[in-house]
Amino acid sequence: MISSRVRLARNVAGFPFIARASGDVRSQVIQQVQSALRGTFQGRQMRHVNVETLAMLDSQFLMERQLISRELARGDGPRAVVISEGERHSVMINEEDHLRLQVLHSGLALEECWRECDALDDLIESQVPVAFHPKLGYLTACPTNVGTGIRVSVMLHLPALRLTKDIQKVHQAAQKISLAVRGLYGEGSQALGDFFQISNQVTLGKSEADLIGEVQEVVQRIVEWERRNREFLLTKNKSQMDDQVARAYGTLTSARSISSEETMHLLSSLRMGIRLGLIENLDAGTVNELFIHTQPAHLQKLQGETLETEKRNLARATYLRRRLNLTSLG
Amino acid sequence: MISSRVRLARNVAGFPFIARASGDVRSQVIQQVQSALRGTFQGRQMRHVNVETLAMLDSQFLMERQLISRELARGDGPRAVVISEGERHSVMINEEDHLRLQVLHSGLALEECWRECDALDDLIESQVPVAFHPKLGYLTACPTNVGTGIRVSVMLHLPALRLTKDIQKVHQAAQKISLAVRGLYGEGSQALGDFFQISNQVTLGKSEADLIGEVQEVVQRIVEWERRNREFLLTKNKSQMDDQVARAYGTLTSARSISSEETMHLLSSLRMGIRLGLIENLDAGTVNELFIHTQPAHLQKLQGETLETEKRNLARATYLRRRLNLTSLG
Repeated sequence: MISSRVRLARNVAGFPFIARASGDVRSQVIQQVQSALRGTFQGRQMRHVNVETLAMLDSQFLMERQLISRELARGDGPRAVVISEGERHSVMINEEDHLRLQVLHSGLALEECWRECDALDDLIESQVPVAFHPKLGYLTACPTNVGTGIRVSVMLHLPALRLTKDIQKVHQAAQKISLAVRGLYGEGSQALGDFFQISNQVTLGKSEADLIGEVQEVVQRIVEWERRNREFLLTKNKSQMDDQVARAYGTLTSARSISSEETMHLLSSLRMGIRLGLIENLDAGTVNELFIHTQPAHLQKLQGETLETEKRNLARATYLRRRLNLTSLG
Repeated sequence: MISSRVRLARNVAGFPFIARASGDVRSQVIQQVQSALRGTFQGRQMRHVNVETLAMLDSQFLMERQLISRELARGDGPRAVVISEGERHSVMINEEDHLRLQVLHSGLALEECWRECDALDDLIESQVPVAFHPKLGYLTACPTNVGTGIRVSVMLHLPALRLTKDIQKVHQAAQKISLAVRGLYGEGSQALGDFFQISNQVTLGKSEADLIGEVQEVVQRIVEWERRNREFLLTKNKSQMDDQVARAYGTLTSARSISSEETMHLLSSLRMGIRLGLIENLDAGTVNELFIHTQPAHLQKLQGETLETEKRNLARATYLRRRLNLTSLG
């Protein structure tokens, strides 16, 4: 289990939706929302970031931290994000909808996410009129979000389900009950590093609590499924697992050049190895951090300079060797 | 450069060739030749091995040491090999011809090989009548060997030519002047570990000295070609080479299970890395030895037991880690 997330889609009443909003309208939306989020939320200072004028590296950085979507990062026109101290809460302004509220928690903590997201929504709605229809509920740019406007998602690390190919069955089972299984960066992204995001697709006709309950129940079943698959692999293919984990470690600590994708793939093996007790002297926290720090923008931030792909691959390999060689393989 | 080899094909006069020789004839051939090779040759004790009754593991072992061919190892009926102390000289009996004399030397030493092989031939011919035609020369089972019956070959390690794909041009150029380029185990075998064997194909109408001169000249050109390619790679793709060599080392020292083929491939990178000065604290002698010791029969001999493929792969990985971890990557 990695993290839980609740996001709400909202639109400011009296303004056209994003697809038909002028630059002027967008700027007014930003102004209204930013004004509502001045100061603190639940004791946390709010940081206001103008995404339109942000350097590419910085918007990529926020994307890697799951604080903004690819759509907001790569879009154009006036757009912004408001982020709380500690990065648990964020509000994207002028993404697909005027507002996308998000709350992230580590572990399976959807109810906490929902409570805080609801409070954040209350704070905004107390100052900004939001488009709401008495029968349909919250109005959104895409009909799939109409109603509660909620998306409840949990990011899971499922290397064993991928290895046994049972992940296909997870996809099928999820689809049947209208849940989506996506990759690390949401819609349309690949399952890099065996990270899968489980989320609801329906937002209409069910309460937020029902949706959260459904996702929670399915996630628990998938986690159990992953656990059984790990046990199976450990029993039936112990030496193959040992080999895979040891080779991943060997490559990560010796490569002189390595892509982000290969890194994610190998770190995934390492993470599984730790969970299965196949590696000692290396903690999951380090590996979780490496997943983030070896991504392109983070790596460049750490290096303090902009680097082309090839130089990034060299820097990534050096960084990995330095971080992992501090520990030794058991 | 790895090693030079000269082999001579001979048949005992008055006996049918192998394809039509009865078990009784084959046994008589063995008797005559063994009797001619009793005692010592050039001060070296001769060891007589009955290949027909040899355990599979032992014949595979002799094959890996280049002392017998796959054909002799896997064939049937009475057959044998006589090997000198130090393994430089060997005489296969009842392979494709009644006799296959072989002399191996490390480095480019075809003339030494030829001189010793000629002396070995003299020793045999002084006691065994050999099929010889005044016009055609030595008679052999396959017409391609008629005449001198000689095959002159040099085994080369050509990783850079393979990496740059220039090895294709080597093949073409060699073919034009009737030289063959083959893999580690001769005819029909793959170029495992980037080892290529260059040898003459014509045996008729040229003297042994001419054939040796031709192969020698071509080998020198190929060696020079390989050297230029290594320099090119080192100049243009230094970081890629560093990466390849370091990853090979990383995998060889961390894998928990590894096939013979992958081992050869990775050792080839390591060997090149040593030659290019990309690795310190590891000598080419160790790597050359590992090429031999990690092969299936050698590995089982070292373990002192017969092992199935999967267990061999585990044992090979353990052996490699033990041998390579004694040294450290510079």
